[in-house]
Amino acid sequence: MFTSLKRFLIGRPLKSTELGEQKLGIFKALAILSSDALSSVAYGPEQILIVLMTISAVAFWYSIPIAVGVLILLTALILSYRQIIFAYPHGGGAYVVSKENLGEKPGLLAGGSLLVDYILTVAVSVSSGTDAITSAFPFLHPYNVPIAVVLVIFITLLNLRGITESASILAYPVYLFVLALLILIVVGLIRIMHGDVPASSHAAIGTPVPGITTFLLLKAFASGCSALTGVEAISNAIPNFKNPAPKNAAKTLLLMGGILAVLFSGTVFMAYYYGIAPNSQETVVSQIADHTFGRNYMYYFIQGTTALILVLAANTGFSAFPQLAFNLAKDKYIARMFTMRGDRLGYSNGIITLGIASVLLIIAFGGKTEALIPLYAVGVFLPFTLSQSGMLVKWVREKPKGWMGKLITNFVGALISFTVLMIFFITKFTQVWPVLIFLPLIVVLFLRIKRHYDRVGDQLRIQPKEKAEALQIKGNVIIVPVAGITQVVQNSINYAKSMDPDVIIAVYVAFDREQEKKFEEQWKVWQPDVRLVTLHSHYRSVIQPLTKFIDTIEYKASESSYCVTVIIPQFIPKKRWHDILHNQSSFLIRAYLLYKRNVIVTTVPFHLKK
Amino acid sequence: MFTSLKRFLIGRPLKSTELGEQKLGIFKALAILSSDALSSVAYGPEQILIVLMTISAVAFWYSIPIAVGVLILLTALILSYRQIIFAYPHGGGAYVVSKENLGEKPGLLAGGSLLVDYILTVAVSVSSGTDAITSAFPFLHPYNVPIAVVLVIFITLLNLRGITESASILAYPVYLFVLALLILIVVGLIRIMHGDVPASSHAAIGTPVPGITTFLLLKAFASGCSALTGVEAISNAIPNFKNPAPKNAAKTLLLMGGILAVLFSGTVFMAYYYGIAPNSQETVVSQIADHTFGRNYMYYFIQGTTALILVLAANTGFSAFPQLAFNLAKDKYIARMFTMRGDRLGYSNGIITLGIASVLLIIAFGGKTEALIPLYAVGVFLPFTLSQSGMLVKWVREKPKGWMGKLITNFVGALISFTVLMIFFITKFTQVWPVLIFLPLIVVLFLRIKRHYDRVGDQLRIQPKEKAEALQIKGNVIIVPVAGITQVVQNSINYAKSMDPDVIIAVYVAFDREQEKKFEEQWKVWQPDVRLVTLHSHYRSVIQPLTKFIDTIEYKASESSYCVTVIIPQFIPKKRWHDILHNQSSFLIRAYLLYKRNVIVTTVPFHLKK
Repeated sequence: MFTSLKRFLIGRPLKSTELGEQKLGIFKALAILSSDALSSVAYGPEQILIVLMTISAVAFWYSIPIAVGVLILLTALILSYRQIIFAYPHGGGAYVVSKENLGEKPGLLAGGSLLVDYILTVAVSVSSGTDAITSAFPFLHPYNVPIAVVLVIFITLLNLRGITESASILAYPVYLFVLALLILIVVGLIRIMHGDVPASSHAAIGTPVPGITTFLLLKAFASGCSALTGVEAISNAIPNFKNPAPKNAAKTLLLMGGILAVLFSGTVFMAYYYGIAPNSQETVVSQIADHTFGRNYMYYFIQGTTALILVLAANTGFSAFPQLAFNLAKDKYIARMFTMRGDRLGYSNGIITLGIASVLLIIAFGGKTEALIPLYAVGVFLPFTLSQSGMLVKWVREKPKGWMGKLITNFVGALISFTVLMIFFITKFTQVWPVLIFLPLIVVLFLRIKRHYDRVGDQLRIQPKEKAEALQIKGNVIIVPVAGITQVVQNSINYAKSMDPDVIIAVYVAFDREQEKKFEEQWKVWQPDVRLVTLHSHYRSVIQPLTKFIDTIEYKASESSYCVTVIIPQFIPKKRWHDILHNQSSFLIRAYLLYKRNVIVTTVPFHLKK
Repeated sequence: MFTSLKRFLIGRPLKSTELGEQKLGIFKALAILSSDALSSVAYGPEQILIVLMTISAVAFWYSIPIAVGVLILLTALILSYRQIIFAYPHGGGAYVVSKENLGEKPGLLAGGSLLVDYILTVAVSVSSGTDAITSAFPFLHPYNVPIAVVLVIFITLLNLRGITESASILAYPVYLFVLALLILIVVGLIRIMHGDVPASSHAAIGTPVPGITTFLLLKAFASGCSALTGVEAISNAIPNFKNPAPKNAAKTLLLMGGILAVLFSGTVFMAYYYGIAPNSQETVVSQIADHTFGRNYMYYFIQGTTALILVLAANTGFSAFPQLAFNLAKDKYIARMFTMRGDRLGYSNGIITLGIASVLLIIAFGGKTEALIPLYAVGVFLPFTLSQSGMLVKWVREKPKGWMGKLITNFVGALISFTVLMIFFITKFTQVWPVLIFLPLIVVLFLRIKRHYDRVGDQLRIQPKEKAEALQIKGNVIIVPVAGITQVVQNSINYAKSMDPDVIIAVYVAFDREQEKKFEEQWKVWQPDVRLVTLHSHYRSVIQPLTKFIDTIEYKASESSYCVTVIIPQFIPKKRWHDILHNQSSFLIRAYLLYKRNVIVTTVPFHLKK
């Protein structure tokens, strides 16, 4: 039943050889890998204006130079990530670049930071998309959290179905959003050129603003930089591209950069020209659309696609997280299960983990995840800085043809990223301090997991030509705990005899003398050739006297290199719920012996037929 | 750590031979087995007045004849339960009596009804006790549910410590409550005799009441009968008494009946004479105490002990439920685990189940469990009726000396119990209908569990002298799934060889051709004498190809009565949390093979040292 539900939800399993068919072309890749970056146009410009408004509406003209700053940063990031794509065509982004060039710990810092960040991306973008939906349909407002959770589950299932299928479904909303905003900007510009918008609605650029401070401008700039948060995703996901993967990835990156630049600068300019002030009732994009079209079908088209893209931004996390987790798991910094491909060839453990973690975040914050946005921006600019610095080291070390140009590009990228990171820490310290605690913890956890795997590897390793030394077995002792005279016990005793060991001992735990005597007599008649040992339990526990006895036997046996096997008779009910009707002491005994004692445990099943 | 916490909470384990020391004398037995019945004095009289008040305050005089009716019922119940105690000295009460005399289904009806009832007792009495406490300290009111839950946990732990220990602790509050109410009644009577209370405050007995109906009087009577709910407990718990158990139990029962009669009639009379009307702000007992003493220390003493006894009434459930569950489990109607004595010789599974179930009820009803009271009363009078009828059948069938007298006693008991039951169904149908659904369901569940156990028994049974036919083994095939060339695999192969089977096959599941070829070559060098079969997995699953292979081998082997053993190499990490870092496919494979296939599974552990 579980299997058919799974088939229905995520489709038939794919063969490993079908992997190539699951790769992405530019068109689909742009849709699923850039939705995060593009969606930030819906809130980035607003973030700038909110900070400026703390002075006065006159200060709004600063949004233009700030937007120019953001565009410069965007250009630098796009160019330097383009270099990373070609230098590391197998993907991995900040984690791989930092680890190879700066060392293990910076790499883990970048990797851990991004891992957490993708979880935040999903939680934040789905919550804000849900907000947009429930703003349109206020009667849904009390159900914000369940709606957000259902959306996350939906996106998780889409991703479990596989990357191309989710890309096919998700491409439309992304391109519709781009189209909607382009129409908005073009129509708006035409109206402005026709002189339909009074120039008096905004202060001219350069108007002096009393009370403006560098601190405030930096804060506004940092807020605007939150529009750049999805840029990293493509470089992490190169293995998902069709061949030639790096080339296609680089093209996608440039395309995304171009679209993002147009939409972002267009939106900022329109907001400035219309003299729009942010308010808590209506978003800036909604105000621009209202000014341009009035509340007609175009307005609702823009609002609808905006809500959709906010939800779909989550999908970028779902593309990048499993790939990053795979890289970390391959290097043994996180659990090995993240390296397994699921039925549909995606790294399903990564996808499911991301889904669960973001649902937990949404529930924990009651759907109000805005407080997480600054954390999330810091979590992006730290790996930005680390990967750009890593590239610097690489160019200096390898000095390939034209390395000076590459060096300068990455240097500018690293410098700006680092500056933005510092601005975040200076202007929003009260909101971002938690990263200073949890990032080191994550790195320590990674290192401990790695150490564990290394130790296990050392203990398991063997040289193929070495002679087998591990377990020298000169003889066998078989112990059969018996609970009565039943078919199950009979099976086990027969099996033990067939193995022809040196010694067979049946063990019976009695709770009183009478029972003990009676059982011994019955046994003599039933199995005269198998030695029976009866143990007495004062405290009604079976495990205690049994393990004590096994310890004694094991101690003697190991002296003469004999191996002790405990055969546990176990009956298997026909239906699983019947399990609770039986004491299942055999399960307990088995687990206890395996974990605590050095004996071999054999289970002889007896399948009940009704 | 878990063990030492357990030791701290419930004490050292007791030897089975210490059971005798855990038995109860009359003094302690009265305290823990009658707290339920006695506590109902705190609300029984009030229940009568609440019904009468729906007519007018003049109708209050009817509480006197109604109380006489309740006392007659009490007498009949006490006398007939006394006969049950001597007839069934091993305890079991309504369940055993109904089952032996009326048949299986009436017995299960009585047993199921009581089982549910004890859970309701605990939930209802702890919630109402908590109400009494938080009424005194209103700032605690928002914490009603957590307080009630903590109280249930506390009582559960006390009972896990053992019956005598809980009796020692709980005896004081019970006797203090009895003392408090006796003082109240005596002082009140003295004041009445001195003429301190004006006779005008109540209507004379026999005053005509316009609008009174038989229906209403019956309803008031039924409500008053809720004071009799704990009477059954002693007959269920006879095995907990010191020898001679039946005699001691009968004495305790008579004592309880006497005390209950005095307290109940005293309270009803005082309420009538003082002309007290029930109101939602203050309980009837509180009003009587206020009229008698004013708000001095005696008033608070009475209120405090009343709150305590309401909570402790839960303890009656904790004494009777595990014993009843033991009886049902012994007869195979519920899971066998209820027959096990825990460390402190109580039936700890029953105690824990009762604790958990009542906590769930309290949480589900948000601490407002009053709605359950009628259900609970029905759940008592049904087994009352069944057990008395069972006794009728017994006397008629066995005709012992003086059987006519006994017959009459039980006949009166049965008749009154049945009448009360009918009154409940007629006057409170809207509240009690759920029992008509869940009781049959419980009986069906009991019967299905019994059928399962019987079938299992049939399949396991063996005659000691019969020759072993079960598993005819002519030879052994050992299959070792291997995942690589490691110490763990080496151990398993060595073990397999030491068993000297007819065939050993190592199986390797490869995901691609290259890996397959490479492994085969390495194997040839490493274990040239062990045959290796490599399987190819298209869908990245290990279990599927493996089970398919095992099925093929098993099919061939069973044709020639060979037995197939799968040896699973498994490494055991040093710390349990490390488990999540390993795929533990060995666990999955083992569970799958045991449940789905007819093969023997041997686990060879490899204990990691760091």
